[in-house]
Amino acid sequence: MKLSQFGEKFSGLTGIVELMDDLGGALNENPEMIFMGGGNPARIAEVESVFRSRLEAIIKDSNKLHSLMGIYQSPQGDKEFLTEVAALLRRQFGWRLTAKNIAISNGSQPAFFILYNMLAGSMSDGSQRSIHLPLAPEYIGYSDIGLSDSFFTATRPEIEMFNDDLFKYRVDFSKLAIQKETAALCVSRPTNPTGNVLTDSEVEQLDELAGRAKIPLIIDGAYGLPFPSILFNDARPHWNENTILVLSLSKLGLPGVRTGIVVANDEIVNAFSNANTVVSLANGNLGPSLVKELFKSGKILSLSNDRV
Amino acid sequence: MKLSQFGEKFSGLTGIVELMDDLGGALNENPEMIFMGGGNPARIAEVESVFRSRLEAIIKDSNKLHSLMGIYQSPQGDKEFLTEVAALLRRQFGWRLTAKNIAISNGSQPAFFILYNMLAGSMSDGSQRSIHLPLAPEYIGYSDIGLSDSFFTATRPEIEMFNDDLFKYRVDFSKLAIQKETAALCVSRPTNPTGNVLTDSEVEQLDELAGRAKIPLIIDGAYGLPFPSILFNDARPHWNENTILVLSLSKLGLPGVRTGIVVANDEIVNAFSNANTVVSLANGNLGPSLVKELFKSGKILSLSNDRV
Repeated sequence: MKLSQFGEKFSGLTGIVELMDDLGGALNENPEMIFMGGGNPARIAEVESVFRSRLEAIIKDSNKLHSLMGIYQSPQGDKEFLTEVAALLRRQFGWRLTAKNIAISNGSQPAFFILYNMLAGSMSDGSQRSIHLPLAPEYIGYSDIGLSDSFFTATRPEIEMFNDDLFKYRVDFSKLAIQKETAALCVSRPTNPTGNVLTDSEVEQLDELAGRAKIPLIIDGAYGLPFPSILFNDARPHWNENTILVLSLSKLGLPGVRTGIVVANDEIVNAFSNANTVVSLANGNLGPSLVKELFKSGKILSLSNDRV
Repeated sequence: MKLSQFGEKFSGLTGIVELMDDLGGALNENPEMIFMGGGNPARIAEVESVFRSRLEAIIKDSNKLHSLMGIYQSPQGDKEFLTEVAALLRRQFGWRLTAKNIAISNGSQPAFFILYNMLAGSMSDGSQRSIHLPLAPEYIGYSDIGLSDSFFTATRPEIEMFNDDLFKYRVDFSKLAIQKETAALCVSRPTNPTGNVLTDSEVEQLDELAGRAKIPLIIDGAYGLPFPSILFNDARPHWNENTILVLSLSKLGLPGVRTGIVVANDEIVNAFSNANTVVSLANGNLGPSLVKELFKSGKILSLSNDRV
């Protein structure tokens, strides 16, 4: 079988393939195992029962059921869901958002595949741009995502030792210099896999650096802010017109429904939705159907804060 | 916003974006409209009630519900589902298949995105390979999928006029010459959008040509064989080790669940699954959960033949 460069690069054994293979094997073959590695969420009876009720309500309403299974959504995603997500974030945090600032994807991995490759890699003028990770180590799932080589750069962190077992690592701003080849800054918050949480001040500084360089600051909020809120301090959610915040329903207990949420300025949301349509055609309806009402009522936040 | 070459190419207004935008707008804003264009399936009460029953059974079984929502599947897809798909096709058509020959994707569009780019485009040796469409016109959703330029070539069909309004078009084998740059042949059967169905003899000839050139024959069976069987003659389903057959649950009434099925030799299935993991991380569980039992019982075929 002759493979293209894409084929050679993407179809080999990568870190994320091995992780997902282990994860899928472990949990599907040993369902009783308590498996907290690899991003698999814990099973929480109270959260599960909320989703069960939502699914029951959908089954009872033949139009809702038809809409879940039988209709392609618009490229950007279910319009009612986009509106509710924007309204909740606006209400809760004062962010100036409408449905035009929200797009859906089939999970956050495909969202990052599209966002990263949309911004970085080979440019029309022949130059190469890269995604910069201000804080390494970062999520293993990013590393193979770039369509061209040398896709990522990183800044070594500043490490403060508390004792032999405990340390905290921070962005080393003395070493962080944005190059002209830098297409975007990207952090996960909490950081995947270590759980380190960037402070509000670190985020502010990154935001300012990105803004000055006119490049986006991408925040992967899969574990974090404002939901599912798997973090243990008072870090504040961050978004503005220059931030691309990527959220996910996976860590809320729904990895099987594949729903990612991109919050960005409308130019980026529009470009993202178009590219997502070429790659994916449409998004799955299960995630938006299950949680639409939870966004409307705000319960998604209390569920995250009190139960997850 | 500075975009990469990928960004410029993929995030603009493409044919498929306009189609999906119209489709999503039309059906979500006017749910009563009978909208048969753009690949949206009709709403058939009997088929819907089968899926409703499956969903009810899942909700009642807490392990099944957890498995639907709360677990990442292995890269290749839900193992039980892969086994049932292979068993059904083996039983029904005598194809020599096991679970190793089946992979799942979040719809057939992402399956084609990965398959096409895995095989064609820029090669390591600097050359370019392309996907050849033996019968044009073909599905609009293919056209923007290639990561590099000049991604497709096509052979002009032979057209037989029956009268002023009716004609049949066929592969013109006298003009079809596979070049050394040809990475694969690809046809949709029935052809999307015209509904033309390649005859068994046309498929055999394409299969032989592809086999001789040692390139795969890709068949897009989204509308067709063996399910949902939206065709009106006795064409026979085709598969062998050199065929990549891509099926979909969309035209069976489930476009919202995003499930594509790739049937190929194990080398291709393995490469595909790995690439799909980098791009998508994992597949949605709703499609496999809903139809697993229908594959096991063979009801998927009778439902397609008698009801769709």
